[in-house]
Amino acid sequence: MADASIRCVPSATRRSEQSRRAALDAALALVTELPYPRITVDAIAARAGVSKATIYRWWSAKGALVVEALAQQSADRPEEHLVLPDTGDLEADLAGVLRAIVDEMADPSYDALMRALSIESLQDPALRDQVREQIFGVQLEYVERRFAAARAAGQLRDDVGTLEAFELFVAPVFHRWQGATGPLTHAYADGVAARAVRALRPG
Amino acid sequence: MADASIRCVPSATRRSEQSRRAALDAALALVTELPYPRITVDAIAARAGVSKATIYRWWSAKGALVVEALAQQSADRPEEHLVLPDTGDLEADLAGVLRAIVDEMADPSYDALMRALSIESLQDPALRDQVREQIFGVQLEYVERRFAAARAAGQLRDDVGTLEAFELFVAPVFHRWQGATGPLTHAYADGVAARAVRALRPG
Repeated sequence: MADASIRCVPSATRRSEQSRRAALDAALALVTELPYPRITVDAIAARAGVSKATIYRWWSAKGALVVEALAQQSADRPEEHLVLPDTGDLEADLAGVLRAIVDEMADPSYDALMRALSIESLQDPALRDQVREQIFGVQLEYVERRFAAARAAGQLRDDVGTLEAFELFVAPVFHRWQGATGPLTHAYADGVAARAVRALRPG
Repeated sequence: MADASIRCVPSATRRSEQSRRAALDAALALVTELPYPRITVDAIAARAGVSKATIYRWWSAKGALVVEALAQQSADRPEEHLVLPDTGDLEADLAGVLRAIVDEMADPSYDALMRALSIESLQDPALRDQVREQIFGVQLEYVERRFAAARAAGQLRDDVGTLEAFELFVAPVFHRWQGATGPLTHAYADGVAARAVRALRPG
């Protein structure tokens, strides 16, 4: 099926899509190899085998390309990056997600990349909006799927939107990471999940 | 009493303290007049009537001086900047604090200053630690006073520390500000306060 549909696409469009994908893959490979400030659009273009002009046809700057590469990585493997587990126990499921985030934050290269992208997003409203749409917004859709199940099971009050519920459990973890206000441990992740579930349950 | 104690201080120490205070006041005046990136240590020194060397004797950079100036402003007027109201109604008191934060964030010059300091803190762990100690840590002490009253009134469960409780109600507001993830309104502030109080109440 996939091959058949690709054969129907005009070849210029197909080549264009291949270059675009090569640039995203190259950006993703480079963020695992180099500190973000040392990655250049030149290096991404060289790795992808495309011209710099090709990259600037789609992305305004390195940040926009890297954010889309991270979004593409999640979209390629949603089970790994986006799907929330559903064991029926909302608190345990949220705690698992938050523990995984805490583990990622403890990785120096992840920490450095998140730090660099946070700085760029604070400087550039267009990048901030892209992060919201391509990263946060997509995560929110998956949270909504898990919350729909919790709602059907009578575990959620009906006066809290999914956005507000999502912020209730991710914001404390990001605040603690960014401000280094306290230890980022599994115990902290579990506590945040417990407090979020108490805040969200009916009654 | 204040005059008598000042007279006991050796005059070099007193002059030194006067220069230090003049630098803090000058920094505070300048952040209300100019965008943060346009403020220089030279301009602060000139406004304060002290040498640049005097400033660098106490502060490593502009950011450290500005953060301490903001902390000093709060310490000078704790009733205005730090004391949480205590009407007996914890949710209403927290909602009032969060509404005030939301109002400040809507002020473009406050927004720009917070953005600039957030960027510097993400780049510089020493500044991040200073913000945590001189700003966040002092706010936390005042939150602890209000929470001690709530605890005495049986309104708080005993398995949540003040730091965790504080993060529960400030982090969502800062996350929404930084990521522009949704409207920063009084209704949002009220909702965050309501969810925090539900998460913190006994039972």
